Amino acid sequence: MKKFINQIEQIVPEMVQGLVQTSNGQLRCLEQTTAVIRNDPQFQNQTQVGLVSGGGSGHEPLHAGFVGDGMLSAAVCGEIFTSPTPDQIYAAINAVDQGQGVLLIVKNYSGDVMNFDMAREMAEADNHQVATVVVDDDIAIQDSEQGHRGVAGTVLVEKILGAAARAGYTLEQLQDLGQQVIKQTKTLAVALHAATVPGVGHPGFELADDELEFGVGIHNERGRNTEKLVTAHELAAKMLEQLQGEFTDFTQQHYAILVNGMGATPLMEQYIFANDVADILQQQGVAVDFWKVGNLVTSIDMTGISLTLLQLQAGWRDWLTADVTTLGW
Amino acid sequence: MKKFINQIEQIVPEMVQGLVQTSNGQLRCLEQTTAVIRNDPQFQNQTQVGLVSGGGSGHEPLHAGFVGDGMLSAAVCGEIFTSPTPDQIYAAINAVDQGQGVLLIVKNYSGDVMNFDMAREMAEADNHQVATVVVDDDIAIQDSEQGHRGVAGTVLVEKILGAAARAGYTLEQLQDLGQQVIKQTKTLAVALHAATVPGVGHPGFELADDELEFGVGIHNERGRNTEKLVTAHELAAKMLEQLQGEFTDFTQQHYAILVNGMGATPLMEQYIFANDVADILQQQGVAVDFWKVGNLVTSIDMTGISLTLLQLQAGWRDWLTADVTTLGW
Repeated sequence: MKKFINQIEQIVPEMVQGLVQTSNGQLRCLEQTTAVIRNDPQFQNQTQVGLVSGGGSGHEPLHAGFVGDGMLSAAVCGEIFTSPTPDQIYAAINAVDQGQGVLLIVKNYSGDVMNFDMAREMAEADNHQVATVVVDDDIAIQDSEQGHRGVAGTVLVEKILGAAARAGYTLEQLQDLGQQVIKQTKTLAVALHAATVPGVGHPGFELADDELEFGVGIHNERGRNTEKLVTAHELAAKMLEQLQGEFTDFTQQHYAILVNGMGATPLMEQYIFANDVADILQQQGVAVDFWKVGNLVTSIDMTGISLTLLQLQAGWRDWLTADVTTLGW
Repeated sequence: MKKFINQIEQIVPEMVQGLVQTSNGQLRCLEQTTAVIRNDPQFQNQTQVGLVSGGGSGHEPLHAGFVGDGMLSAAVCGEIFTSPTPDQIYAAINAVDQGQGVLLIVKNYSGDVMNFDMAREMAEADNHQVATVVVDDDIAIQDSEQGHRGVAGTVLVEKILGAAARAGYTLEQLQDLGQQVIKQTKTLAVALHAATVPGVGHPGFELADDELEFGVGIHNERGRNTEKLVTAHELAAKMLEQLQGEFTDFTQQHYAILVNGMGATPLMEQYIFANDVADILQQQGVAVDFWKVGNLVTSIDMTGISLTLLQLQAGWRDWLTADVTTLGW
């Protein structure tokens, strides 16, 4: 394992310190936590519902890179691929509540759901108004207990809710909007190489030189199948076909699309894949109103790509294109 | 070699098409070229000096991802690691000249310098006013004929000149400013794994599990030395020491710093390394007025980091923080 690190145990605190130190004053770290909070001048002058997200580290820029005016108020950084603790989440809720309440945006993993729930209960006992939305956009795997995982589509949820919160939506309106957006957000991911978790020291699984893993998660979970590597165009067609099956009246609707690199995938290849997605949808006459391509929700150094389709309703595109001052969007 | 591509010969045109198709209308491709030009509504209404850059592909988001209001007017995308042809560069000059002339921003490689020079001569014969600045920020290697290479610092030059051009600087003023900025921009890069050029099919060089290459270029050029892998902090200290030697009165000045991932380096590790850089400079009492961290000037899928120091003069920080509408900044 070769990585630019110091001690393995210090990876998350040093990463958070690095993010804050190089944020040009936009972010600060809550004392004695690895929670990152807005520090821009607008933050103190606005009164809006606070938005808190978080989860295991290793997905950068998600979530801390999306803290800023027009997106998240704070992000809580857990250990690598491990949920943050309830007390850290509680500290973030407490720090961002400006009297309008706080919405938690949680990816659907049992550890995250449990710890954010405990933090919500602690905060409610302390007279904070708190609501939660749980993102479950991954269509690859459905766990019988937990349901679908929350993956790259989370960033679109954060962007839409961040813009709506700044525009003055109430806690209840934001929770409602979040649930509507999540219902229309579907993601599928593939990998050519698994990630190497620093504490493990080797890739999470091995693939042959002509294989790809179809339907991976963002924590080195294997997918539905190990398959033969195909061209970018064939892959785009297959992923689109499976995603389309999740929507009714697919070709009649408007979409936002996220092509997401998972850490070690060159941007060049992401654009080639996105080009194939765009060509196929154009041939089908499907309207894409918003595109985003890049490394937004990574899995350390996984070589992989995820494709997210968000079926838009009136006004959502404006939230997606609204100005934002974050490091990662 | 496992990559998300179709045919190797189609990589660059498909990448450019993907970039344009997913730019939400911000970019267009000049017909029968792989040159990308601004397509935003402001572009036709402004009158400013045109800024054209370009070079071999494989460094995305550089250069096409930096085309937009407040940065480049156009970028010419050559084949992978290969200069674009003079006729493509000429087409870009011709398309962006609004009567105020065009500045070419060229990385110091013999192929690029030669082809941009030929394009300039073609354009001048056609009554365009054209000037050139050549970026040579890499301190690792000095070729006896060509001098220092142009690497990641190029993006800071493009950002400063882009903001100044929008603010109404003349061609002569921009060339002068560019030369001043370039003189104060110094970069050093290291790699843990070389890039795999698609047409080659394997990494450009091999390193052992405990080795890093110190002083690499952005085209898989080996560096000054192959060395033992050290911690991020030791590496930051060593790179800073060598970069500092390039400046007079180092600790008395103000700096902008770019920590740049070279394609397959997780953002997590870039922030850890940046944290070490920030800590060391703080201990030295050096003022850093602007930070940028991320994959800006990559080398396909190289696992590596470059560190750029730009010694600031009055006003330059404002150009660096000025608003910009590009895909990559």
